[in-house]
Amino acid sequence: MEYGSDEYFMKAALQEAHMAAAKGEIPVGAVIVGAGRIIARTHNLTETLNDVTAHAEMQAITCAAEAMGGKYLNDCTLYVTLEPCQMCAGALYWAQISRVVWGADDLRRGYRAMGASLHPKTTTTSGILAGECQAIIDDFFKKLR
Amino acid sequence: MEYGSDEYFMKAALQEAHMAAAKGEIPVGAVIVGAGRIIARTHNLTETLNDVTAHAEMQAITCAAEAMGGKYLNDCTLYVTLEPCQMCAGALYWAQISRVVWGADDLRRGYRAMGASLHPKTTTTSGILAGECQAIIDDFFKKLR
Repeated sequence: MEYGSDEYFMKAALQEAHMAAAKGEIPVGAVIVGAGRIIARTHNLTETLNDVTAHAEMQAITCAAEAMGGKYLNDCTLYVTLEPCQMCAGALYWAQISRVVWGADDLRRGYRAMGASLHPKTTTTSGILAGECQAIIDDFFKKLR
Repeated sequence: MEYGSDEYFMKAALQEAHMAAAKGEIPVGAVIVGAGRIIARTHNLTETLNDVTAHAEMQAITCAAEAMGGKYLNDCTLYVTLEPCQMCAGALYWAQISRVVWGADDLRRGYRAMGASLHPKTTTTSGILAGECQAIIDDFFKKLR
């Protein structure tokens, strides 16, 4: 896997998803890349923090803005293991992020199914390591039952 | 103005909006009411915190969950001076809040114009002190020019 490829950065997001799973969180991980380097690494913490707003993407946006010294993420790419929900799409919209890359589609609660929108300037790529990204979620729910 | 009326709580949200304006923030304020009492009072802090996720509603959801000791806001009402955006609507969706009350409509970036959704169990009321809620925003942008 080549350094700097979409698969490379999605692997980093998957590592974060595994950290979420180990805490009993729905396993979703994210990284944000700016100028070729990872500037934020986060995972879902909604149970740990008792806070519905603590999705991986939301935390990544806050961290990346801190790293960039500005709230706009015009030259950044978000990698996230699961398609963002409407809340996260809304935050990515305000951040005017350049590009969003996700692994598994979320056909029920993903932003597309819910009708929400990314910024018109934002490009998207889906399906990167989708099998692995979906498997970690499926495993998590299988163990819950 | 009767204690506990929608106008009463919207006045409290308007006080928060004025605090935002005094900091140079787009003046939007919010309160969340649970069991008849205000459990969160917040205002927009996106400039102060350099963080697009720091809308009044997002902070209010986090504070109210802390006050309630749980992440669901099933028996709570959010009062916000401006119609929520898709990010905030998405967060309110996950919180399964009972009721959302806003003052001024946001015809450009409000969740309805953007196509986002509140939870099917959430009821809404709009137009409470709408004139005052809109005026504080109009004044803010007039001074900027």
